[in-house]
Amino acid sequence: MRLKIVFNILGKLLIFVGLAMVLPLLVALFYREIDVLSFVVSMGLTISIGKIMQKFSFSQQEIRHREGFAIVTLGWILISIFGAIPFMLSGIFDNFVDAFFESVSGFTTTGATVIMSLESLSHSILFWRSLSHWLGGMGIIVMSIAILPELAGSMQLFKAEVPGPVHDRLRPRIKETAKTLWVIYLLLTVIQILLLWLNEMPIFDAVIHAFGTVSTGGFSSRTLSVRAYDSLIIEGIMVAFMFLAGTNFTLHYQVLRGNIKALFNNKEFRFYLFLVSTAIILITINLRLQVYKSLIESIRYAAFQTLSIISTAGFATVDYDIWPPFSRGILLVLMFIGGSAGSTAGGIKVIRIYALMKKGFQELYKLIHPRAVTSLKIGNRAVSEEVSTSILGFFFLYIIVFVVAAITLTSFGIDIVSSVSAVAATLGNIGPGLGLIGPLKTYISLPVTGKLLLSFCMLLGRLEIYTVLVFMLSGFWRK
Amino acid sequence: MRLKIVFNILGKLLIFVGLAMVLPLLVALFYREIDVLSFVVSMGLTISIGKIMQKFSFSQQEIRHREGFAIVTLGWILISIFGAIPFMLSGIFDNFVDAFFESVSGFTTTGATVIMSLESLSHSILFWRSLSHWLGGMGIIVMSIAILPELAGSMQLFKAEVPGPVHDRLRPRIKETAKTLWVIYLLLTVIQILLLWLNEMPIFDAVIHAFGTVSTGGFSSRTLSVRAYDSLIIEGIMVAFMFLAGTNFTLHYQVLRGNIKALFNNKEFRFYLFLVSTAIILITINLRLQVYKSLIESIRYAAFQTLSIISTAGFATVDYDIWPPFSRGILLVLMFIGGSAGSTAGGIKVIRIYALMKKGFQELYKLIHPRAVTSLKIGNRAVSEEVSTSILGFFFLYIIVFVVAAITLTSFGIDIVSSVSAVAATLGNIGPGLGLIGPLKTYISLPVTGKLLLSFCMLLGRLEIYTVLVFMLSGFWRK
Repeated sequence: MRLKIVFNILGKLLIFVGLAMVLPLLVALFYREIDVLSFVVSMGLTISIGKIMQKFSFSQQEIRHREGFAIVTLGWILISIFGAIPFMLSGIFDNFVDAFFESVSGFTTTGATVIMSLESLSHSILFWRSLSHWLGGMGIIVMSIAILPELAGSMQLFKAEVPGPVHDRLRPRIKETAKTLWVIYLLLTVIQILLLWLNEMPIFDAVIHAFGTVSTGGFSSRTLSVRAYDSLIIEGIMVAFMFLAGTNFTLHYQVLRGNIKALFNNKEFRFYLFLVSTAIILITINLRLQVYKSLIESIRYAAFQTLSIISTAGFATVDYDIWPPFSRGILLVLMFIGGSAGSTAGGIKVIRIYALMKKGFQELYKLIHPRAVTSLKIGNRAVSEEVSTSILGFFFLYIIVFVVAAITLTSFGIDIVSSVSAVAATLGNIGPGLGLIGPLKTYISLPVTGKLLLSFCMLLGRLEIYTVLVFMLSGFWRK
Repeated sequence: MRLKIVFNILGKLLIFVGLAMVLPLLVALFYREIDVLSFVVSMGLTISIGKIMQKFSFSQQEIRHREGFAIVTLGWILISIFGAIPFMLSGIFDNFVDAFFESVSGFTTTGATVIMSLESLSHSILFWRSLSHWLGGMGIIVMSIAILPELAGSMQLFKAEVPGPVHDRLRPRIKETAKTLWVIYLLLTVIQILLLWLNEMPIFDAVIHAFGTVSTGGFSSRTLSVRAYDSLIIEGIMVAFMFLAGTNFTLHYQVLRGNIKALFNNKEFRFYLFLVSTAIILITINLRLQVYKSLIESIRYAAFQTLSIISTAGFATVDYDIWPPFSRGILLVLMFIGGSAGSTAGGIKVIRIYALMKKGFQELYKLIHPRAVTSLKIGNRAVSEEVSTSILGFFFLYIIVFVVAAITLTSFGIDIVSSVSAVAATLGNIGPGLGLIGPLKTYISLPVTGKLLLSFCMLLGRLEIYTVLVFMLSGFWRK
């Protein structure tokens, strides 16, 4: 690995993040907050380190496989560390692990928090927290077109199915594709801010919630999250945009170009629609029968929570932890599924679940008709054996990481449901879980090692597991 | 499908089970119990129906793929139905679902019970209950050599690795191989009965517990299970035989022939040893620190429960449901792993977990060295792409069945941990789980639909999922 090239790009990344800190700085100036100083110092520090890294390294156009994995993994860790500095300087936390947890939760668009009362924070800190979501979301868009296709098969499905701006010969077009998707990302953000603002959400809160929705992060400006507004129309807007944020962004591009048919020809989108509507219906029935007296109320909570979890945003309008086991169980399953590939959502991804289902049926079919020649197809495209094995392998690794992390959490004395949901919620980049870390609670009560473990889970989940593991193991296998 | 050939074999099976009822009948006569009548009637009914089925069908040497799946699936259901008749006639249950649950739990060697007090049962009923384990275990041995190799890849690993009496050209040798393995099965049973008896367990109880151990079933003659005897030496014998019952039977054959090296060259056996010892050590540490004051006591309970769960027997010497989440979590994971292929144990099987681990690492290796030519090896044998895909597919199907069944259970209002462990414990053919169905409790409190669902899970798990699903879907795909 050519470390100097890796360092160079990491340096650029830090300078970019440092420059982004000018935005919360402006917010601090606008609201005349004491945190002006925190951001000036953080900016200076981040940009300086970035400059130093660049000074002792050099840039090159072509980067290799392993270098790509190193850049993505180290990059996300590095920006999370530097992104935690403003939290430390503003005095919210008395230890760096909590600040780092909050920061990595921001940049990975998880939205798990260790802050008990959001109302005690300054506007600038709240803004920085949510901006980390939004920047993280941008990063994921680049990663999903520049790095992930390198991961044999894991994202090739997404490429294969969508005839959008993502082409087969990607490299020369990365910049162009990224730009198109960023425009969509920006557009969604702006429209959501306007809609929320027009419906009586304060403009500052509107920005925070749009950042948290479009990136599927889930940080709010209110301790009570979206239920603080108690407005059907605001919830409706959130539901719509969580749905959109969990959809493949190249489909938005298609629709904007007038190709609405592309949407309904897309297998992943149809399966996503199917999962969302099934979950809403089942939870609604369960809630109506066992919790709420009104059907409307049941639908309202069911729709919001389903979209919030499957899109991996993680907002809440109700303490779903007091719901019956059936509804909580469904939410737990949705945490594993996650949103669509090519969106900002986390989780295993709808397209992989779809491909796995088809593969499972195919294996059974082969047993009945042993001489039949079968090939896995999604839409009109055949999926190579290599790609389908890679997806199966991904699923297995996801479960293994989940099991090992959950068992480790129980070793700190945390009960099984809380441990299981904490790992599912961080690995899937959702945020809140069940039990100890339910929607009315935070991750603050966990031990330090637990927080570090879950930070690692957020990173693993966000970078599609393979990226991090390959980076960690590549030294091991080179010897 | 040639239904008449299927019917013929099913008829034979019923006659065999009917004849087996002579054993509990003798027990009833010996103890002068009223259940003599129950068994006479059950025998008559079972044999008559078997005879009638044979009368209207014909036998043939060669059976086809689908017919094999049909025979195995329908066979296990049929013997469970007829096996339930003595329970009904003896008046233990007031509904057939409970009797069927107990019977299917017996024949699938699960050991989940709906009987609150075993001391209120007659000797003959207790004997029949445990005999169903023992017969089920015999059936699994035949199935694993006669039917499972047909399931593309799912058991080929086991064939590939073990150079035992299982040969590549199986068909002509099925009888011979089955006989060898049955002799080992019988030998293990007899030795265990003697050892238990010599160590002051009443002879009747010794038979019951040996039946439950060697078949990895787990039915006891005492409501308190093995803790009723409170004897270190009896527990030691049980631990040893649970370990043996969870080991590939062809390895026993090798060892009996003096080839002890085969044992330690066998990758699955080594991984099984590794899993068992790791689990015992981790649970011992956890128990010593948080539950028991004595190290010996901690080791004693940890070893017994680890072997009981991984071998999928499901006996208990302690209420492990009050253990800390870490120990309970490890037991829950062991429920999924299960014992070795080619043993009477259930679960995913150690060899599959081992192959999946290797496959996962291989996928990661391929990402670092994209041009490297890799092939999955277990021991010295290469595993074909087809076989490894089939194992990955099995894993996915197992998880899907688990998730769907667990969510369905929660819809009856059963809490998440109880639902999850109930499905894990029946799908893995273990028996007791956590929470509502912990080792001090029974499945009696579940609703009727829940019991039927879990009966189906026992069957699915016992027949390696594929068998049942292929049978259910083959009609669907023929149209």
